[in-house]
Amino acid sequence: MRKFVSDKSCRKLLHRSFQNLTQKLQHHNHQHKAPPSSVSQSRFLSSSSMAPCSSSNPSAPSVTLDNINPKVLKCEYAVRGEIVTLAQRLQQELQVKPGSLPFDEILYCNIGNPQSLGQQPITFFREVLSLCDHPSILDKSETQGLFSADAIERAWQILDQIPGRATGAYSHSQGIKGLRDTIAAGIAARDGFPADPNDIFLTDGASPAVHMMMQLLIRSEKDGILCPIPQYPLYSASIDLHGGTLVPYYLDEATGWGLEVSSLKKQLEAAKSQGITVRALVVINPGNPTGQVLGEKNQREIVEFCRKEGLVLLADEVYQENVYVPEKTFHSFKKVSRSMGYGEADICLVSFQSVSKGYYGECGKRGGYMEITGFSPEVREQIYKVASVNLCSNISGQILASLVMSPPKVGDESYDSYCGEKEGILSSLARRAKTLEDALNNLEGVSCNKAEGAMYLFPRIELPLKAIKAAEAVNSAPDAFYCRRLLNETGIVVVPGSGFGQVPGTWHFRCTILPQEDKIPAVVSRLTDFHKRFMDEFRG
Amino acid sequence: MRKFVSDKSCRKLLHRSFQNLTQKLQHHNHQHKAPPSSVSQSRFLSSSSMAPCSSSNPSAPSVTLDNINPKVLKCEYAVRGEIVTLAQRLQQELQVKPGSLPFDEILYCNIGNPQSLGQQPITFFREVLSLCDHPSILDKSETQGLFSADAIERAWQILDQIPGRATGAYSHSQGIKGLRDTIAAGIAARDGFPADPNDIFLTDGASPAVHMMMQLLIRSEKDGILCPIPQYPLYSASIDLHGGTLVPYYLDEATGWGLEVSSLKKQLEAAKSQGITVRALVVINPGNPTGQVLGEKNQREIVEFCRKEGLVLLADEVYQENVYVPEKTFHSFKKVSRSMGYGEADICLVSFQSVSKGYYGECGKRGGYMEITGFSPEVREQIYKVASVNLCSNISGQILASLVMSPPKVGDESYDSYCGEKEGILSSLARRAKTLEDALNNLEGVSCNKAEGAMYLFPRIELPLKAIKAAEAVNSAPDAFYCRRLLNETGIVVVPGSGFGQVPGTWHFRCTILPQEDKIPAVVSRLTDFHKRFMDEFRG
Repeated sequence: MRKFVSDKSCRKLLHRSFQNLTQKLQHHNHQHKAPPSSVSQSRFLSSSSMAPCSSSNPSAPSVTLDNINPKVLKCEYAVRGEIVTLAQRLQQELQVKPGSLPFDEILYCNIGNPQSLGQQPITFFREVLSLCDHPSILDKSETQGLFSADAIERAWQILDQIPGRATGAYSHSQGIKGLRDTIAAGIAARDGFPADPNDIFLTDGASPAVHMMMQLLIRSEKDGILCPIPQYPLYSASIDLHGGTLVPYYLDEATGWGLEVSSLKKQLEAAKSQGITVRALVVINPGNPTGQVLGEKNQREIVEFCRKEGLVLLADEVYQENVYVPEKTFHSFKKVSRSMGYGEADICLVSFQSVSKGYYGECGKRGGYMEITGFSPEVREQIYKVASVNLCSNISGQILASLVMSPPKVGDESYDSYCGEKEGILSSLARRAKTLEDALNNLEGVSCNKAEGAMYLFPRIELPLKAIKAAEAVNSAPDAFYCRRLLNETGIVVVPGSGFGQVPGTWHFRCTILPQEDKIPAVVSRLTDFHKRFMDEFRG
Repeated sequence: MRKFVSDKSCRKLLHRSFQNLTQKLQHHNHQHKAPPSSVSQSRFLSSSSMAPCSSSNPSAPSVTLDNINPKVLKCEYAVRGEIVTLAQRLQQELQVKPGSLPFDEILYCNIGNPQSLGQQPITFFREVLSLCDHPSILDKSETQGLFSADAIERAWQILDQIPGRATGAYSHSQGIKGLRDTIAAGIAARDGFPADPNDIFLTDGASPAVHMMMQLLIRSEKDGILCPIPQYPLYSASIDLHGGTLVPYYLDEATGWGLEVSSLKKQLEAAKSQGITVRALVVINPGNPTGQVLGEKNQREIVEFCRKEGLVLLADEVYQENVYVPEKTFHSFKKVSRSMGYGEADICLVSFQSVSKGYYGECGKRGGYMEITGFSPEVREQIYKVASVNLCSNISGQILASLVMSPPKVGDESYDSYCGEKEGILSSLARRAKTLEDALNNLEGVSCNKAEGAMYLFPRIELPLKAIKAAEAVNSAPDAFYCRRLLNETGIVVVPGSGFGQVPGTWHFRCTILPQEDKIPAVVSRLTDFHKRFMDEFRG
């Protein structure tokens, strides 16, 4: 009897979902590469004809490149792309046969991963994390000898902010309320404008927050997101994965990667004329891969543009602590828009922050947050719902996000050592940036803009025609050809400009400024020697 | 000059992306609710007419429920839905006005979050995490007094597995190789069949792994995923977010939530006849919300079914440590398929595991992995690429995942205390399950299947017609009506069966077995009294 009911109702339910589906299909078709019927047919064939032959196949044939989500197939992420795979292979070679290559170590300058290159974590932050992971040692006498007093005190404060002091429990979907209070206070102190803990969504690094916003805004290929070119490939990858259209706007290399609002307008109009609904504008400040820091006047123009056009301003501000030139200062877009008198009613603004960058560089902890303002309660509820589906971000990352927004203060036991560590890292990064920038500008046919901020240089290379032809001969982009040669001959890993986008016909690569200072001379000499050899080989 | 170039090439690039888009649009339309033209039009209107009026609006109008991704709008996640929001409001009321409600605390039985209800973490695991967060104390003398010797030793081992001992660095996109080696060894020891570290993808809990597979497999609404009903709503939510179709198969309550392969076949055929391409079968074992543990014979039938039909078997095995009855044992689907002689060439199999469940219950650490077998190298590359876009999962979660798959062994200093903690938690969970199961079966019109495993009971309630009418009168599902009344009168939070799916016309709720043992009597008496009052009020 029950079986009967269950089967019947099962078909009912199934039928409902199909009705619903069929209705949907009436006004929009789906995303198969081939027409649906043929695709379904081939599925039927495969699924009925597969079983007998499957055992003889090298791998189960039910999933192939022809039948996976084409959005996945389309998306690219150069920062961990082909060159990095080659680097990993070379590293294994070095382990198996030391001395078999013209270099003794791989220098990963492809990704902003400071601690992988020897940067040490901030002691205070790690003390607090360690204590929160194992609170039962907090009141042991030995702990006093191992941890600073303010780390112990901060750990107690944080534990008291966690319901039941349960550091192993799922938190509120937006993150632990007490930690969001701390972060909001940190934002308010930074900007001089209030911040609301209910606007904070803690996430596993900034990337999931970016995906969440793309998922919210992108309905189809007819929805566009304005992105800088060159851009951090997370944005192009996320737009591809969510099936939207990247609407590019070019940063102007001639003016130090300046952002011209006139070019934003041109691109917006061009997109509209193609029937694209532009939903949002991505701005990365300080810039990745370009390293420029936007001026306040420029930021005001951008805010005004987004407000007028009704675009969501997606502000990637994960490098807010990474500014290396005295003449530039970081201003958050929230501060700028509020100082223009614009509030909740005027502009939808999302600011992304991460524990992976700055002077802390805690990439492996996967902590970060987004601050969202200007969204209606109904839309915020939808963002909350999406956050809830993944339950919450990791608690250690949440704690770390609160620490970077509220580091030791004057008078705290750790204050001096904290300042020493912070300044040591930031001043060293500034020196490394300058040294590499100068070295690059000394190379024949290479021009590199000033590294004002972030963790990267994005030099332009004028490649000889012979090199371009040699690249074409092996079906490689000329910049990828150059980077592969650089890796094979020196062990230095950089990312071809084509992975970030560049003015067609120009060639660049992205190089981090993160190798430790004692390694910089080696990087410079290896790079210089290689570049000279390369140019000698291909100079016309 | 450069500006000119950049603008020109910019338009070129834009043009390319649109060409590409236009081609796509030729054979498939997009997912707007309204026809594209009108939608674009309304966008043009809004974006041109918005600026002037925006300041007068309560919130920036550029993002509304009408123009966000309809997939987001559609998705639901009951475990953190309406009832939980009500519970949070009541909790605030209790804080502001203690004594204002008929109960003095909220008992969250809505979600498998053991440590939020007082379960203590496994000491050894937390010791290792704490040491890995702050390695500089590893060789301090005080550390010997605070941490067990094997925790210190394990921390050293793990640090040596991390390149440069950099616990703050991004790892390999699949997770730290040494930790994947440990996990693969743990799987091999569990199953008696080899496991390959390159098949392991470490993730922030199991949820992102499930999303990754849905993203890979679902191309459109014409792609279906076979899911159990009742199911854990992560699956319906993920299928909705990725735009696929959930193809339900009913678990049979009459046979203790048994899984009938005949019903799988019926549903698969029904789906095919509707033009749905079924890509995968989701099996949750031990079951959530149903708590049943599959028999090996049943598992073999499921493996055979997936192999024959060319379906990916998505095995949710996060409750593998949560089995409470002597007559049942957990067998992984990998072990079952290998013991049937099926290998890489025969079946695509994905096993999900998490640090959030089991006896460890470390939900907040967001650790987990998926083991994928049977996929071609090309497809695996695509999965790797998607994993790379988010760089890596959090390192503490990665370490914890390796610890749960390789806990202390006989002879280790922590072994006895570890076993004591583990057995204490599991035997207590078994007692709590039995007590609650009996209590529920004592209630008028309630029948509850045996809690064989997992962390939940899913009792069926025969609601009086008067109660159903009363629910309809307030536009509520009868089970949601019952659960809201239960919460308002007792502070006990459970999730209505409608959030998981149930045979139409039957009503259930999901209740975790996680309240600490000293609270169980209160839960039972509160629930019993409430139920009696409820039935007295509505009995015909």
